[in-house]
Amino acid sequence: MKFDLKTAVSTSVSGMAAYAPGEQPEGGSWTKLNTNELPYPPSPKVKAAILKELGKRGESLRLYPAPESPKLREAIAKFYGLKAPFAFAGNGSDDVLNIAVRAFSDSKRAISTIDPSYSLYPVLAKMQGARLKKIPFEANMKIPFKKIFESNSNIFFFTNPNAPTGLGFDLKTVEKIAKNFNGLVLVDEAYAPFSGFSAARLVKKYDNLIVAGTSSKAWGMAGMRVGWALANPKIVEILDRVRDSYNLDRLAQAAGIAALNDVEYHLSKVRLIVSEREKFQKFLSGIGWNFYPSSSNFIFFKPRRGTSEGAAEAEAFFEFLKKNKILLRYFPNEKSACDGVRMTVGTPADMARVRKAVREWIKL
Amino acid sequence: MKFDLKTAVSTSVSGMAAYAPGEQPEGGSWTKLNTNELPYPPSPKVKAAILKELGKRGESLRLYPAPESPKLREAIAKFYGLKAPFAFAGNGSDDVLNIAVRAFSDSKRAISTIDPSYSLYPVLAKMQGARLKKIPFEANMKIPFKKIFESNSNIFFFTNPNAPTGLGFDLKTVEKIAKNFNGLVLVDEAYAPFSGFSAARLVKKYDNLIVAGTSSKAWGMAGMRVGWALANPKIVEILDRVRDSYNLDRLAQAAGIAALNDVEYHLSKVRLIVSEREKFQKFLSGIGWNFYPSSSNFIFFKPRRGTSEGAAEAEAFFEFLKKNKILLRYFPNEKSACDGVRMTVGTPADMARVRKAVREWIKL
Repeated sequence: MKFDLKTAVSTSVSGMAAYAPGEQPEGGSWTKLNTNELPYPPSPKVKAAILKELGKRGESLRLYPAPESPKLREAIAKFYGLKAPFAFAGNGSDDVLNIAVRAFSDSKRAISTIDPSYSLYPVLAKMQGARLKKIPFEANMKIPFKKIFESNSNIFFFTNPNAPTGLGFDLKTVEKIAKNFNGLVLVDEAYAPFSGFSAARLVKKYDNLIVAGTSSKAWGMAGMRVGWALANPKIVEILDRVRDSYNLDRLAQAAGIAALNDVEYHLSKVRLIVSEREKFQKFLSGIGWNFYPSSSNFIFFKPRRGTSEGAAEAEAFFEFLKKNKILLRYFPNEKSACDGVRMTVGTPADMARVRKAVREWIKL
Repeated sequence: MKFDLKTAVSTSVSGMAAYAPGEQPEGGSWTKLNTNELPYPPSPKVKAAILKELGKRGESLRLYPAPESPKLREAIAKFYGLKAPFAFAGNGSDDVLNIAVRAFSDSKRAISTIDPSYSLYPVLAKMQGARLKKIPFEANMKIPFKKIFESNSNIFFFTNPNAPTGLGFDLKTVEKIAKNFNGLVLVDEAYAPFSGFSAARLVKKYDNLIVAGTSSKAWGMAGMRVGWALANPKIVEILDRVRDSYNLDRLAQAAGIAALNDVEYHLSKVRLIVSEREKFQKFLSGIGWNFYPSSSNFIFFKPRRGTSEGAAEAEAFFEFLKKNKILLRYFPNEKSACDGVRMTVGTPADMARVRKAVREWIKL
C-alpha cells in the first residue's frame, strides 16, 4: 500500500486549521457569556412543536425530513415580510455561509470581508481555496467604502451588527455597498434583532444581496441549528444546488417554525437584552472603561486599571473572571481585538455578577 | 452595478444540478417504499432521550451543542467495538461523504466509484471540481478489482451493500481493495446492518479506510440526520477540519446516543426486515422475475409480463404502483438500472400490498 495521508489531503484543506468555536463548558455552574447565546429558553411553543412532530412514539422520525424545509422557509419569509421563494434554510447560519462560499467563490473568485469580523470567514475561504482579502475599518470604525468597492472580489461579507465590536450600521450603509460593489454582498445579520432593523427586504431591490440570519442568538435556539438566508430566488436556486439534501432534521424544522411564529416572545426577550445592554454600558461609562456602543447582544470593552489598558489587561481580566466561573470571549491572536473582551449580555443577575467581578478586579 | 449572476457562480457549481432525493410525499396514505426508510419507529429510548435533553421548558436549546458530539462518538465507537478517537459524527452520512470529498479530493485528486452506486457521489465530485471515474461492475456484478487498483484516483467510494442493486460483498473483498488501492477507500455502509457484517473494525488495520454509516435506515431515524464514520484518528482529525463546528444539534446527538445504545431493539427490527426480504424474494422467484439477491433493506427487481422485461415494463410497473399509492424508486436516467425498480422492504402488511399489486399488474 502506497497510501500517504499527507499527500492525500486536498490542497486547500492540507494547510488549514479548523475553526475554533468558543468554549462550551459542561456542567451548570458557569455564567456563560462567551458565545452570545440568549440567557432565556426559546418560546414555549418550540417545545410544544417538537413534541407534536415527535408524535406518541417518535414515529415521524423514521421518515426523511422535507428536503427544502418548505414550511420553515415560509415562516422565515413571513417573519421578514417576504414571499417564500426569497427564503433559504440552513443547519445554522454557518451552513448558509459555507454554502455561499462554495457557490460563489473559488481559486479565481476571491472573498473580501470587513476586518475585524466573524473569524469563520477565513476558515471557509481557505477550505474553498479562495483568496481572502481583509479590509480593515477606517479610523473610528468607519466603513472603508472605496476599498470595498475596489476590492475586486466576488463576495463581500459584511457582519451587521459587526462582531466582535457590536457596532451596527444603518440600512443606507448596506444599500450603498450593495449598489456599488460588483459582486455579491452577504450581510450576516446574526445580531440584527438587537439592532432593531434588518436589510432583509432590500433583497427585493438588489439582486446581489444575501441576508443571513440565525435563531441561535435572538430566538434562544443555538442548540437547534436553525439558520437562514434571504435573497433573490435566482440566488436561492444556486444555494440549493450546494445544500445537503436533508440539511435540517425534522425537529429542527418544527422548532424553527414555532420560534419564528412567536414574534411576541422573541421581541420580549430582545427588549430584556437591550435594556441590560444599555444598563451595562452606563456602568462601563461610569468607571471610565472604553467600549464600542453595541447594537448586538454583546459588548466589546477594554478592561483597564488606572491608565493601564491593552492586551495584558484584557487577558488578566478574562482570566480573573474565568476563575470566578464567568466565561467571556477573548481574542489573543487578533491584532485588532486583543486589547478587549467580548461579553454576551445575560440576565440581570448575570450582569450583576459581572459588575461585582469588575469592581473586585479593579481593586487588585 | 455590474453584478452578473452567471459569472458570479463558482466554476464547479455553475455546471451542476442539485442531487435529486427520492420523493417525500406529504400525507399519510402512501405506502412509501422509495427511500429505504425503516417501516418502524426508532427505539422508544430515542423519544425519552429527546425529552430529557429538552428539559422542562426546552431550556437546553438555548446553548450551542457540543461541537464534536463527543458522547455520540463514544456511542458510535462502542457499537462497533472501537475506541472513541476512531469515530466521527455527521449530520447524516451525506454530511460525512461531503466532508470526505472536500477533505480528500480536488481538481488534481480524482474520485472513483463502483458503478452503479449512490447517485450523490457524482454530485459531490462535481461540486468539488474533482474528476469522477465510474468503474462499472464486471459481468454478473463482479468487482472489477484490477480497474479499481489502476484507477489512479484519490478516493474510491464503495457502497456495501451496493445501491441500487442491494448486493453485498464480504469483508475479504473490502480488505483486498483497502490493501491494493493507493488512495482512500470509503466504504459506505448505509445498508450494512441488513447484511450482518461491517468493515468498521478493519479501520484499525488499514490507515486508508473510512467506513461510513447512518441511523437513517436500520435505526429508523432518517428524520434525525445522524450519520457517522469510523477511521484512523489521523483521518478523523482531517474530517474535523472541514466539519461545520456545530454540525449536529442537541436533540440529534441525544437521539443518536439512545438509538445506538439500544442494540436489542435495533437488531429485532433488522431481523423483521430480513425475514420479509427473504419472503419477498421467494415470491419473485415464484413468479419468475429477475432480482439481485439483496443484503440490504431493499430489493432491486425487474418487472416483467410474459417474456417482456426492460425499461418500458419497469416504468409501467412503477406508474401502476404509484396510482395504487405505493411509491417505489425508479431510475429512468441510469443506463445500468433503468430496467428495474428498487423497493424498500416494509412491514408484512406493506409487502402483502405490493404482492397484490404485482399480481394485478401481471394480468393487465
